[in-house]
Amino acid sequence: MPRAVVLLSGGLDSYTAAALTQREGFELYALSINYGQRHAMELHAARAVGRALAVTRHVQIDLDLSRFGGSALTADIEVPKDRSLDDSSIPVTYVPARNTIFLSLALGWAEVVGASHIVLGVNALDYSGYPDCRPDFVRAFERLATFATRAGVEGHAFTVSTPLIDMTKAAIIAIGASMGLDYGITRSCYDPATDGRPCEHCDSCRLRARGFAEAGVRDPLLR
Amino acid sequence: MPRAVVLLSGGLDSYTAAALTQREGFELYALSINYGQRHAMELHAARAVGRALAVTRHVQIDLDLSRFGGSALTADIEVPKDRSLDDSSIPVTYVPARNTIFLSLALGWAEVVGASHIVLGVNALDYSGYPDCRPDFVRAFERLATFATRAGVEGHAFTVSTPLIDMTKAAIIAIGASMGLDYGITRSCYDPATDGRPCEHCDSCRLRARGFAEAGVRDPLLR
Repeated sequence: MPRAVVLLSGGLDSYTAAALTQREGFELYALSINYGQRHAMELHAARAVGRALAVTRHVQIDLDLSRFGGSALTADIEVPKDRSLDDSSIPVTYVPARNTIFLSLALGWAEVVGASHIVLGVNALDYSGYPDCRPDFVRAFERLATFATRAGVEGHAFTVSTPLIDMTKAAIIAIGASMGLDYGITRSCYDPATDGRPCEHCDSCRLRARGFAEAGVRDPLLR
Repeated sequence: MPRAVVLLSGGLDSYTAAALTQREGFELYALSINYGQRHAMELHAARAVGRALAVTRHVQIDLDLSRFGGSALTADIEVPKDRSLDDSSIPVTYVPARNTIFLSLALGWAEVVGASHIVLGVNALDYSGYPDCRPDFVRAFERLATFATRAGVEGHAFTVSTPLIDMTKAAIIAIGASMGLDYGITRSCYDPATDGRPCEHCDSCRLRARGFAEAGVRDPLLR
């Protein structure tokens, strides 16, 4: 069985991307990063997703990116609320080099366990405008991986698989619902209340709400 | 004054690379990674190097790569001793994706502090044969950085500066000695004794010894 390292954030995109990869016949190695995010409760959701998918192994790595700051998710900067979803500028929730760092960690683990695939649940349509969610970024990382590793030198290329890259949030939710995924175990909010309730006004909550509405599916988190 | 993020390992290469960068007029932001390496005492050396260079800021990031294993430096695998220095195979001290991970972290911090340069003390001549020390790797990372970041999208390219890439170890030591660098504060050994004494038989000790011998300089560590 081929192996894939999947980055699980606890959100619905990475859950769906992992489930699609599993359906293609991959054995899943799940990786989650505790990076000092203000919404660290997403890590509980990530573990629930790992259990729901019965992944072979789930590793959580602690890496305190708040030491660098520079983002509303890791520093004392307010998370924007009710921002236009058509605003194409890069918002302050962007975490500098986050996906580069996460893919690098996934690459290291993939080489150790002999996984040829790294799965990232990014999509370039209904997303927050982050540069490191775009296809050009993904292709550049794949190219880097062949130079960066022993496996690459020996001719084993790494594929960074982004099964959701061209899907709308509604399409992702419709596919996940058709596969029976329980989105009630996921978390998307950047700025949840201390009791875990989503704020419903950050970009991530609003993209999620619009996706469920367009898919005609009820969000099990909001009952 | 332009800013540079320099990766300081505690070894003599990164010390020399940082000193050369400072001499070119850069303000230094030093980054060291506590990655679960068996030779963690190199981090004390890295702090001494940061003080010697009077860097503007020095951040140490904890990131336990022993969770992945797969290397003699992070897992219970013996460090090879008295290996031929002409052996071009990749040794078991290779840490999967280490320089990709380190450069990614440096990139994140560089974007936050507005540094255009990231300095890596790799050299591709007298080195341990790691794939992520080669010029092709460095160029591929530079290319990735422009896609990965807000700064890149806005037209600010990142340079990964490797001032030692084409130098022999002897040349590095000769230049450092001519600049008055105190290599007595550095550590190179992969497998030091508990009292800090270098083993003198691992690749890193032997490359260091050959470099000092060829440069005609006495290693202040071995008195």
